[in-house]
Amino acid sequence: MAQSQVRTLGTVLYENFELLDVYGPLEMFGSIGPELRLVTIAQKAGPVTSTQGPQTVAHYSFDNCPPLDLILLPGGLGTIAELENEALLTFLRQRAANAEITMSVCTGSALLAKAGVLDGHRATSNKQFFMLAASQSDKVQWIDKARWVEDGKFATSSGVSAGIDMALAIIARLYGKERAERIAAGTEYEWHQDSTWDPFIKYLNQGDASQLPPPASANG
Amino acid sequence: MAQSQVRTLGTVLYENFELLDVYGPLEMFGSIGPELRLVTIAQKAGPVTSTQGPQTVAHYSFDNCPPLDLILLPGGLGTIAELENEALLTFLRQRAANAEITMSVCTGSALLAKAGVLDGHRATSNKQFFMLAASQSDKVQWIDKARWVEDGKFATSSGVSAGIDMALAIIARLYGKERAERIAAGTEYEWHQDSTWDPFIKYLNQGDASQLPPPASANG
Repeated sequence: MAQSQVRTLGTVLYENFELLDVYGPLEMFGSIGPELRLVTIAQKAGPVTSTQGPQTVAHYSFDNCPPLDLILLPGGLGTIAELENEALLTFLRQRAANAEITMSVCTGSALLAKAGVLDGHRATSNKQFFMLAASQSDKVQWIDKARWVEDGKFATSSGVSAGIDMALAIIARLYGKERAERIAAGTEYEWHQDSTWDPFIKYLNQGDASQLPPPASANG
Repeated sequence: MAQSQVRTLGTVLYENFELLDVYGPLEMFGSIGPELRLVTIAQKAGPVTSTQGPQTVAHYSFDNCPPLDLILLPGGLGTIAELENEALLTFLRQRAANAEITMSVCTGSALLAKAGVLDGHRATSNKQFFMLAASQSDKVQWIDKARWVEDGKFATSSGVSAGIDMALAIIARLYGKERAERIAAGTEYEWHQDSTWDPFIKYLNQGDASQLPPPASANG
């Protein structure tokens, strides 16, 4: 957390990000107040279009983004194109090295794995498209049955809604459990506090494979 | 639904709207695909700042907004200022009259009540600030213990996260329950299908009253 009392959470956006991957966690983190500043970032500043249509404004580009204490990386259909975006992967590599905690939701962990920053760590991902992440690196200890996984500086959640539970867990870690519980109550959210709770494991890799790219040849 | 196969869902934004009030439902509605077009509207088109900070682009103004089959109205701290915004209240009155279903999340029902469109209907609202809505009209049958309330053309949800459950219920009504269940599974969301489920009733009117305006004198 550097020397400051105020942390900065940077959400990294890209075309066709999944709405709730971003806004579930940002609802919870945004309830912290002045101790936590939320910024939005994309390769180019300006409106970024989600998979569902609505556009969010990225206030910073990769080039003028301030130092980040926390990073949030969503998934979504756009993940597939971004796996080939070296500018994004480089940004993630550089910023994750200096962040207190780097978080991903859903297929966002595929991008972190492709960037190489999850190597040697435990991580999870979206259930229906788990192989999209798992095929990016065989040096990650992939955990399929998990609502989210925390391993040191990294926290990765399962699909979409799971990011909300992960966000509250990280809030509990950084600001105390009572704070997290108060935020969950205020947002009328039934927080799943057990990171191993995962009723969606039954859908493992049962997503529509036509939406996925060919598997990377060198990885498992 | 007019004569068209494609419905249009308009989300009405205003400064200091609550992020998840909008994006919980839009994640679910946005998963319908081409049968449902999502548009964003504000008094003036362009970026609208949420309570939490991130900005969403409103693609239409009240003046050039297309016909709406479905309306989604969020709550948030901005609700209080909007209660005095006659342009918004007029827009809601005019558009709700022609919409198939008008939905609100959280304190959004205070605005619908102030606009008068909920008179004679059952409705609910945010738990911790329930009186903010209830004090806008005594011609509404306010139901405090409810995750959401459907009454004809209107659906109102309790606070923030409750909008997700309401959205899935409306999807089930319009597109079938199997469709709603598939969307919940794909987004790894544990859908509360019982509209009377409300563990947050214990926080009824226990929010910080200093955040509220003085009660309207003529209403209960």
